[in-house]
Amino acid sequence: MANEFAARTSVEQVEEGAELAPKFDADGLIPAVTTDAATGELLMVGYMNAEALRRTIETGEAHYWSRSRQVLWHKGATSGLVQKVTELMIDDDQDCVWLRVDVTGGASCHVGYRSCFYRRVTLGTKAGGKGAIKLEFTTTEKVFDPAAVYGNAPNPTKL
Amino acid sequence: MANEFAARTSVEQVEEGAELAPKFDADGLIPAVTTDAATGELLMVGYMNAEALRRTIETGEAHYWSRSRQVLWHKGATSGLVQKVTELMIDDDQDCVWLRVDVTGGASCHVGYRSCFYRRVTLGTKAGGKGAIKLEFTTTEKVFDPAAVYGNAPNPTKL
Repeated sequence: MANEFAARTSVEQVEEGAELAPKFDADGLIPAVTTDAATGELLMVGYMNAEALRRTIETGEAHYWSRSRQVLWHKGATSGLVQKVTELMIDDDQDCVWLRVDVTGGASCHVGYRSCFYRRVTLGTKAGGKGAIKLEFTTTEKVFDPAAVYGNAPNPTKL
Repeated sequence: MANEFAARTSVEQVEEGAELAPKFDADGLIPAVTTDAATGELLMVGYMNAEALRRTIETGEAHYWSRSRQVLWHKGATSGLVQKVTELMIDDDQDCVWLRVDVTGGASCHVGYRSCFYRRVTLGTKAGGKGAIKLEFTTTEKVFDPAAVYGNAPNPTKL
């Protein structure tokens, strides 16, 4: 798929070069990993299409592509919880970006938690045996009330 | 696709429950974000199929699905750079996992760098204009020599 970034011409260019030549997948998306610039905490993993990446670079505010809503998503447009990008990194083969952000309001998760990652998987347990593998909550404190912020908007979580 | 983990029965169960009910995509994969347990640095983003996730949980060592090689990938099996998982987290809608790892040997990138993320994108620049968007190297120090470690194995980077 054509996009507005540099063409990918060689492995050396992609891995060791100094120009942005991102690889979008068959759906035109690239995964984006977002961590808190101050604490290093993983806040969320989203996806960007070419436009979302372009706008993120131009504005310094995180934009994603919402797969559940199928729209360009300026993070915080509804909730006010805008992510200011302090550093944007790209990986070796340029098929993933890493955003370090400051979050106005301190939350990034639609469930109301600070981070989308609030449960720990118990290691050393067998799947497929009796009972499910257990999750342990690492926080139970919600930073905001999703019902107050999102109202009746559909929940993005899909089964 | 059937897998050995708990079935996903409701949004409440998935978001607020205490059982692991991961969602794999149409290819049977879930993205895995891997950070250094000591420094918080983002090391890599990979993918797991159900078997890779199960083995990671059972053994406490990171296993991925290699999309380029189409094989189960016990990270470090070739290079010796095994990732010991100190914490495994899952996100709100359980379609992404976060591994915090200790890396024997201190590197996670097939190019030889400590992290796959060694280049910073210049913010505030316009795509689609004259010239490419520039990348700035944040490190130039390679931790190992890929040719010595991988020999003539094909480079996983795809154009």
